[in-house]
Amino acid sequence: MTRILYELHGRDQYRFSPYCWRTIMALHHKGLEFERIPMKLTDRACIAPSGQDRVPVLVDDKTWINDSWAIACYLEETYGDAPSLFGGAAGQRLAEFVNRWADHTDHGALRAIAVPDAWRHIDPDDREWFRQSREKMFGRPLETLRAERDGALPAFRDALEPARAVLAAQPYLSGKAPAYADYILLGTFMWPRCSSPYPLLDADDPVHHWRGRMLTLFDAAAANAPGYDV
Amino acid sequence: MTRILYELHGRDQYRFSPYCWRTIMALHHKGLEFERIPMKLTDRACIAPSGQDRVPVLVDDKTWINDSWAIACYLEETYGDAPSLFGGAAGQRLAEFVNRWADHTDHGALRAIAVPDAWRHIDPDDREWFRQSREKMFGRPLETLRAERDGALPAFRDALEPARAVLAAQPYLSGKAPAYADYILLGTFMWPRCSSPYPLLDADDPVHHWRGRMLTLFDAAAANAPGYDV
Repeated sequence: MTRILYELHGRDQYRFSPYCWRTIMALHHKGLEFERIPMKLTDRACIAPSGQDRVPVLVDDKTWINDSWAIACYLEETYGDAPSLFGGAAGQRLAEFVNRWADHTDHGALRAIAVPDAWRHIDPDDREWFRQSREKMFGRPLETLRAERDGALPAFRDALEPARAVLAAQPYLSGKAPAYADYILLGTFMWPRCSSPYPLLDADDPVHHWRGRMLTLFDAAAANAPGYDV
Repeated sequence: MTRILYELHGRDQYRFSPYCWRTIMALHHKGLEFERIPMKLTDRACIAPSGQDRVPVLVDDKTWINDSWAIACYLEETYGDAPSLFGGAAGQRLAEFVNRWADHTDHGALRAIAVPDAWRHIDPDDREWFRQSREKMFGRPLETLRAERDGALPAFRDALEPARAVLAAQPYLSGKAPAYADYILLGTFMWPRCSSPYPLLDADDPVHHWRGRMLTLFDAAAANAPGYDV
């Protein structure tokens, strides 16, 4: 049996997709082996059998699953004897809330900060496509966005406040041990970590301490990824 | 045995505290009877034994508990045989995330919209105190805030996006049946409902449909509270 994760390609093994990181951590949590295959944004033929064009895509033997949330739910159902990603149905439902919060509120505040440096770490073949799509999204050049990032930082830190309040009182969002809600938020931070030396958090921020714990999990899978130690 | 809930007093039985509504719904969920005693902001002597000065405060026989989240956790632990508010430990941990999200992100976006009309529904004895404390908080008169509310509405609707995305696919934040995460968000909406005729949601918003379902629970406990049907 083979298990393949198609993920976003970056230059020099910098792989910063927050959504792919959610899946990487979920697979480690389940104790599942997998092969990582990077996909360029300008050549998505490898995931065509998934019926759509976005990563992550997991191929589990002959089953194709796309969308990080759908993959997490698939893994939980298929590998029910392995450690749970959600801790039960109630935890799964509210992990979906955290997922939506990260996608919208958290990433919404981070995007303008993270995208300019992400452009520097994307595969050279993808750079022009990436620049055009992001400059269309933001309505201004990446260089302008980059110059504005100090001004955008307070809104990102503020968006983290619900996580900060929880993490001030317990080691992980999921409680005493990490689970999928933590992998969602770790994905948020792997995006800048794998593409930017720009520091986002104060050293005394509970979210900073939590991130440090998350980086050590599964033989430091996240810490060992090519990136910046900020 | 007596069970007393001290809650925020308003004129003509308008009781708009979102935090008190979380507790009211939690008590109904657990099937517990309770007496509601309103407290004026300018006379908090009745809750002095709780060691602090904010409502809700629950007195369960001889046990005093304050803070809506602490009360929910107390009810879950003390009345373990009654229907669960959290659906297990994992659900409880992530319900706390939802709680923090509502307190910070969601209420942060709603506050400027809701406070001016809330002032009109507070007990007359509390009005001057309420006005002074809120005008200090916002740095401008309540009348100015009220005139600005159309401009503040898009940010509140945007803050609801994580809930909206979840509720587009399932009837309650907690899944097929309501639980404490839903009572948290219902509290958010009881605040304007019990103090303002200003409409916040489009009729086709999944959050609007969810709110309609929530209002019917427990013999329409929330729908029957004095307020505005918007």
